[in-house]
Amino acid sequence: MHSEESPESHPLTSSAGQNLDPHLRRYAARAAGMTASEVRALFAVASRPEVVSLAGGMPNLAALPLDSIASEVASLIAREGMVALQYGSAHGVPALREQICDVMALEGISGHPDDIVVTVGSQMALDLVTRIFCDPGDIVLAEGPSYVGALGTFAAYQANVVHVEMDDDGLIPEALRQALSVAESRGQRVKFLYTIPNFHNPAGITLAVSRRAEILEICRRAGVLVVEDNPYGLLGFDGQTYPALRSMDPDNVVYLGSFSKTFASGLRVGWALAPHAVREKLVLAAEATTLCPPTLNQLIVSRYLETHDWQGQIKSFQQTYRERRDALLSGLEQHMPAGCTWTKPDGGFFVWMTTPEGIDTKAMLPRAVTARVAYVSGTGFYGDGFGSRQMRLSFCYPTPERIKEGIRRLAVVLEQELELYRTFGPASRRITSGPQTPSPDTA
Amino acid sequence: MHSEESPESHPLTSSAGQNLDPHLRRYAARAAGMTASEVRALFAVASRPEVVSLAGGMPNLAALPLDSIASEVASLIAREGMVALQYGSAHGVPALREQICDVMALEGISGHPDDIVVTVGSQMALDLVTRIFCDPGDIVLAEGPSYVGALGTFAAYQANVVHVEMDDDGLIPEALRQALSVAESRGQRVKFLYTIPNFHNPAGITLAVSRRAEILEICRRAGVLVVEDNPYGLLGFDGQTYPALRSMDPDNVVYLGSFSKTFASGLRVGWALAPHAVREKLVLAAEATTLCPPTLNQLIVSRYLETHDWQGQIKSFQQTYRERRDALLSGLEQHMPAGCTWTKPDGGFFVWMTTPEGIDTKAMLPRAVTARVAYVSGTGFYGDGFGSRQMRLSFCYPTPERIKEGIRRLAVVLEQELELYRTFGPASRRITSGPQTPSPDTA
Repeated sequence: MHSEESPESHPLTSSAGQNLDPHLRRYAARAAGMTASEVRALFAVASRPEVVSLAGGMPNLAALPLDSIASEVASLIAREGMVALQYGSAHGVPALREQICDVMALEGISGHPDDIVVTVGSQMALDLVTRIFCDPGDIVLAEGPSYVGALGTFAAYQANVVHVEMDDDGLIPEALRQALSVAESRGQRVKFLYTIPNFHNPAGITLAVSRRAEILEICRRAGVLVVEDNPYGLLGFDGQTYPALRSMDPDNVVYLGSFSKTFASGLRVGWALAPHAVREKLVLAAEATTLCPPTLNQLIVSRYLETHDWQGQIKSFQQTYRERRDALLSGLEQHMPAGCTWTKPDGGFFVWMTTPEGIDTKAMLPRAVTARVAYVSGTGFYGDGFGSRQMRLSFCYPTPERIKEGIRRLAVVLEQELELYRTFGPASRRITSGPQTPSPDTA
Repeated sequence: MHSEESPESHPLTSSAGQNLDPHLRRYAARAAGMTASEVRALFAVASRPEVVSLAGGMPNLAALPLDSIASEVASLIAREGMVALQYGSAHGVPALREQICDVMALEGISGHPDDIVVTVGSQMALDLVTRIFCDPGDIVLAEGPSYVGALGTFAAYQANVVHVEMDDDGLIPEALRQALSVAESRGQRVKFLYTIPNFHNPAGITLAVSRRAEILEICRRAGVLVVEDNPYGLLGFDGQTYPALRSMDPDNVVYLGSFSKTFASGLRVGWALAPHAVREKLVLAAEATTLCPPTLNQLIVSRYLETHDWQGQIKSFQQTYRERRDALLSGLEQHMPAGCTWTKPDGGFFVWMTTPEGIDTKAMLPRAVTARVAYVSGTGFYGDGFGSRQMRLSFCYPTPERIKEGIRRLAVVLEQELELYRTFGPASRRITSGPQTPSPDTA
């Protein structure tokens, strides 16, 4: 009666897996790369009010003029509902694509509306780019660390990520050259460099302007495309912007943009700007994925850009996030134990912290959540297991007061971990590790 | 100076292609399967007011209560904007998933909200299912003809479609057995049967209730999953519904549903209901694709289901489409030349017409558009080049009067084609063929 045995009697073995999921042997090879991201598990935790979440990347929407947006959307549906609620093209609403050109012009980009494809968030743009370029086994170069959601997409297409080292000025050109040369010597096909040049997620670092032409030149010579992901570019805390890579090499850069951080993430409106032939393929791939992006959402963004002071709104976001960044940095200065180091972003949402020898941020996470503070451990931002001493701290969502309280709590947890390590050595980690999944109910 | 030559001097050669698209050699193998669908090319044509479009599948939204939807959405944004405009989970809004269970119950389905994943239209649900199940070279079985958008998705994942014959009662069980047995003898891996059991797109046929258990049993014995695509199931013209395949075999059916035809297509809200382990993989794949479906759109649908008489609205849709179906069928009876045959749907959007020997519906299309009527030629609904004498006629969008006028125009074009064929034989096709792309400007 083997098949009647409880699955619990075969924990984590392949045969138990088959008992649990009768479809197991039917999945595509790529399904093996689809694993739950750490960020996803933490969405649930972050929503508990007693936990200060420095984990999520949810933008702060409190400053949005909800009443006037509501009345614009109502007029849109009442007057143009037959269009707004109907299918559109996979390419995207033409008027919005023209307005997106105006938005991109703020970072020096001169694009044509026809070369834009509107997507369901820039995540989908990244999915489409990976879909049309990456065969299984192809290499994608990315900063180390890199955006966890991008790593998930690359894994879903069985592309292998090779991380390229950063310093305080971002991607290191010499490290990029070396990575390309290693790949070439191994006969590997590098399909593109995925980079977040401005206010990097999770690193909080901006690629120095002086390095940009060099990075582009290295990729161009190597025949490697550049995928520039720029969701935070307009969120410089002093209103500063940096020249987009796309503005410096239009033929070899696919640019990904988003309204999630400058307007509203829940609308899921993003885009790709691509060389013309690539854009054509992206539209075909988009059509096979969703037929078309939601028409209503595109028209809401278009109407918002037309009728609201969207640049003024972005200035207000910059100020909010600057205050929160300041709260986080001063909290870290004040409370963190010796040996902790962190980046000092001048825009965006994130600080990247490195903890002293002896800390495993993933093992520590359940204890942090028990102490009512959450972060994302560093390993999620690497495809190769690195990052166990690192963590991402987000300052976008909680108020400055909550951020300071969260940092106080985090410092206490870190001190306790370090004390254990000093007393018992590395073995202490195994003794005290809780479950890998945060369980705030035990608090 | 070979590389300086104009691309036009090497029409359609590989080197010319590389001149046109410098990224050509970088694409993934799957990108080769991404080609423009005939439906897509026709969206542009269909939008010209002088053309009666029997081509598109755009639902009729005229009956929707736009003013009251507008005011509900305004209140949603004003009162719950901080949630509606924020990121959500890849799984979908819980309240909506519960309501989706109520919708599915109308067709006999007893599902659990946790086993539903909300997607950007059911097209995305199909994309995710194909993504997690199909390796390149895997076989997908589908009715012949089948939905053009599904064929595009299967091609994008390099799955090979094997069509299974239908008769007036839908998929023929014996043909399914044979297709499975041929695949087995060739050592091919069949991953799933993709079927549209109710008011088939494009065939306008419903799978007989008496065949349903047999089809399910054949697939179950062969170890082949069933993907049931059911966007039209609630649009039976007499209010009739048929028991969903999912209701008869929950463990071996992935069910795809949509609000595009029962509420509003431009919101792009669809879903998959899947066996639990499959649903988990679908959520991970969805997360890598779009992070999450738009929160606002999910809440709009949820609010609509809560506050509007949605079942009454569906009844009104049924009546509208019945009138249009009647207009189309009576027009066909009255005007079509001898030798034309067509299906007589009792629900949905589509009639499938077979024309007499001598007609090539794809070659004829430019002439039809010149005569100000559009349809979709049959070859788009087959992965194997079949369908050249068939066409899909949609009755969902134009008014009954316009439908009748469109059929009159189509009959004239067909008569002219047949006359040419009778006079000059098959060669006439080559003499009179215009460009493959419809060019209504020449009208």
